[in-house]
Amino acid sequence: MEADRQNGCIGVFDSGLGGLTVVRRLMAELPGEDIVYLGDCARVPYGTKSPETIRAFARQDADFLMKFDPKLIVVACNTASAHALDALSAALPVSVIGMVEPGARLAVTFAGPGPIGVIATEATISSQAYPRMLERLQPGCKVLSAACPLLVPIVEEGRGEDDPIVLAVLSDYLRQMQRERPTTLILGCTHYPLLSGAIGKLMGPATRLIDSGWAAALAVKRQLTQSHLARAAGGGGTLKCFATDNPQRLSLLAQRIMGRAVEVNWVGTDELTCEKV
Amino acid sequence: MEADRQNGCIGVFDSGLGGLTVVRRLMAELPGEDIVYLGDCARVPYGTKSPETIRAFARQDADFLMKFDPKLIVVACNTASAHALDALSAALPVSVIGMVEPGARLAVTFAGPGPIGVIATEATISSQAYPRMLERLQPGCKVLSAACPLLVPIVEEGRGEDDPIVLAVLSDYLRQMQRERPTTLILGCTHYPLLSGAIGKLMGPATRLIDSGWAAALAVKRQLTQSHLARAAGGGGTLKCFATDNPQRLSLLAQRIMGRAVEVNWVGTDELTCEKV
Repeated sequence: MEADRQNGCIGVFDSGLGGLTVVRRLMAELPGEDIVYLGDCARVPYGTKSPETIRAFARQDADFLMKFDPKLIVVACNTASAHALDALSAALPVSVIGMVEPGARLAVTFAGPGPIGVIATEATISSQAYPRMLERLQPGCKVLSAACPLLVPIVEEGRGEDDPIVLAVLSDYLRQMQRERPTTLILGCTHYPLLSGAIGKLMGPATRLIDSGWAAALAVKRQLTQSHLARAAGGGGTLKCFATDNPQRLSLLAQRIMGRAVEVNWVGTDELTCEKV
Repeated sequence: MEADRQNGCIGVFDSGLGGLTVVRRLMAELPGEDIVYLGDCARVPYGTKSPETIRAFARQDADFLMKFDPKLIVVACNTASAHALDALSAALPVSVIGMVEPGARLAVTFAGPGPIGVIATEATISSQAYPRMLERLQPGCKVLSAACPLLVPIVEEGRGEDDPIVLAVLSDYLRQMQRERPTTLILGCTHYPLLSGAIGKLMGPATRLIDSGWAAALAVKRQLTQSHLARAAGGGGTLKCFATDNPQRLSLLAQRIMGRAVEVNWVGTDELTCEKV
């Protein structure tokens, strides 16, 4: 029974393929785990949409993953974590780990007395999820926030970090941040690690960048170890990847993120919305 | 019976609120018509997604509008027009007018012997719908195409035409276009008229900009007049607006496009996907 649960997969979802940056971290930290991933690419992005819509989509995504009888669900999307984590945790019979708390915890560890910066989508920033969590972890800490709505489409367009447009957009979003010199800067969207080189250059070496996905992977490892559900390396180590949009065109981005070929299977949004699990 | 049909509404849909630029044109050209609009803002954008997903969503949008017993459907989205118009025309019992043919016709009227430019979303450009239509209308004409994936998120972010980011992104997309000096440039996305000032400045006065939405409004007027289905001014003139995302946050963009307050009603994507009409 215990062994059965140990052998269960980790379910991971995101609004698109950005969550694969978290999967990459998970596979490095937990090489023995089987992972089932769902990218809701037909309805991406979530970050510009309303809390109600984000919660509805996140619930459908999680319900799809529940069919695989996972031992844990990872919300590999900061926007969905910010708006839907509490509802998912209350509704699902397994542990649910999001991006916000692990990212905030790791930031606090490194921040010292200096201000902590957060960059994220519009929906994540307007949820105030990061400032609230940081205040809980380190009362009175100063938090600087900036919504960066163009960064997701920029990454998905495939622009490199040295592209002048990328630098111009980043400079625009980070202007205030550069002046206030946070000691740590949380990359509060799973797409942003793909731009960490450029963000790091603009912020300078005194600001440490926090990859919320990496923080979440560490939190998952901790949680599975504590609950004796971790599987030893040499176990599964498989990745099953689903997307709601046509998977062919997504394989390129998936390969870019994972650093190897990934087979992406199609699942229609109709299947997500019309079945009650 | 004939009067009944005349009094029927015009159904208009788009992936988001950009299609309201077409509605504004329709209301100016046909002030007596009642219009029902659906913006699929929960799943916007369509322009970065696959043809299969675009066709599925477009069919759901059109099916929703059919409940209002329209006399004509306008696909106020170039991406959906490029990929789904034939399928919708075959499936629906009313005329369906898209953006591509009217835009191409108007461009040919003005182009003379010079090349014709088209800027649009990735999906519209990769469909080759504009070059194919232009070739049919003016065999041998030279067509220059450029996909501009960031322009929709830029407009939706609310950046103005004199924003340096907007100018940098436009300059990047239009570089080749500027060298080849098309006599006309089709704005092949309903969001782009909101940037026409900046686009016009970059292209110079020798390039005439074609608003595909205005072209479509003229085509609708022609079609209704020819089929004796036009309603005289002084008739309805109402606009009923639906959106699949939370309507509150959309009212600002709607107001910006329409130049007046617009009441937006919510309809869930579940309603679109799960009912068979």
